[in-house]
Amino acid sequence: MRTAFHEQLEGLAASIAEMCGLAGASMERATQALLQADLLLAEQVITDYEAIVLKAAAAEERAFSVLALQAPVAGDLRAVVSAIKNVADVDRMGALALHVAKLARRRHPAKVLPEEVNGYFTEMGRIAVDMGNSVKDVVLSGDPDRAAQLDDDDDDMDNLHRHLFNVLMEREWKHSAASAVDVTLLSRYYERFADHAVEIARRVIFQVTGEPAGTAPSASTDDQP
Amino acid sequence: MRTAFHEQLEGLAASIAEMCGLAGASMERATQALLQADLLLAEQVITDYEAIVLKAAAAEERAFSVLALQAPVAGDLRAVVSAIKNVADVDRMGALALHVAKLARRRHPAKVLPEEVNGYFTEMGRIAVDMGNSVKDVVLSGDPDRAAQLDDDDDDMDNLHRHLFNVLMEREWKHSAASAVDVTLLSRYYERFADHAVEIARRVIFQVTGEPAGTAPSASTDDQP
Repeated sequence: MRTAFHEQLEGLAASIAEMCGLAGASMERATQALLQADLLLAEQVITDYEAIVLKAAAAEERAFSVLALQAPVAGDLRAVVSAIKNVADVDRMGALALHVAKLARRRHPAKVLPEEVNGYFTEMGRIAVDMGNSVKDVVLSGDPDRAAQLDDDDDDMDNLHRHLFNVLMEREWKHSAASAVDVTLLSRYYERFADHAVEIARRVIFQVTGEPAGTAPSASTDDQP
Repeated sequence: MRTAFHEQLEGLAASIAEMCGLAGASMERATQALLQADLLLAEQVITDYEAIVLKAAAAEERAFSVLALQAPVAGDLRAVVSAIKNVADVDRMGALALHVAKLARRRHPAKVLPEEVNGYFTEMGRIAVDMGNSVKDVVLSGDPDRAAQLDDDDDDMDNLHRHLFNVLMEREWKHSAASAVDVTLLSRYYERFADHAVEIARRVIFQVTGEPAGTAPSASTDDQP
């Protein structure tokens, strides 16, 4: 029998899933803003982040209501606390898209990136959007296969991040140190975006199956270059 | 009358406070390891992080027990959820000290930093340790004045972070791009460490007073350079 509790939990999952989609869309726009020095798009990401913050606050209030009114225990309690943590992670994903957009705005009308690294960020942006969509699906479906795909995407992101650092560190970097600083921070923003998506997916899968998802703790991916 | 609930909540605060102290001590050692290319000290920070992770897991379990057994509502419920979030932030502080230590280890026996920026990191390390101790006190005392001091420390950290980027970006950076990458990431680690300390302090003060502490949302400090 479906209970009021489970309906509320599903409502909470739906709003977290929506936020995941929004964070992915923001990172997509932020990447465009970055690559094309598009000020309007950057401004839109910056404005849209406010909506993510409001949705995060609303989702958290929703979780509080469930805890206060239903006083869940055991697995049900963990599911709600897990949702509260997911809200924090997805809010952070939105904040990282915001950081990308703000850097694009700060350097406008100049482009932030030297031509030769555009390809890396095009690809990192594409992966970030995919991950936003995948984690949205995982939150809604609890599908472990879809979650496993997020781990693969995260590996791809880490590889790009590492390669990019190699470009900066091992070859002759022909551009300014200023430009190296921007590229370093941007690469870190994408990599952290992916980490948070993986965190959410793992938390959902652990909630569904009782088994840790993936092969490595997320901390290992947060340790680049 | 003191209730079992409030005793449990105090126990939880005590373990979070302990973790804050440990994270500060780790950042102190990591800074030494960084400045002196001290491999043993770096290894110690890396090992010590495991203890922080275990304590975080234990504190979270403790919070779950309180929720499950006491089913608190209203302010009491918020206090426990707030504690769970504080655990996540202090764990992250430990992870950031770990990142500093790992970078020191990766470059050993070379020093990571060019001589001319040592002073910045000495000072950032000093502020980080102070903030670890201050946030420990805030968690135990709920003292708004002590929390306000954390905001000042965070401003100092942000200023150092900005100045350091100016060194990298505006003057002639005589060192390699590789070195600029390391300095950028390190500076970001210290700055984020400070942000998490401020997050915890603000959450505690909001819990105690019902009023937001400080003058600006933490997001504003997480937006450098």
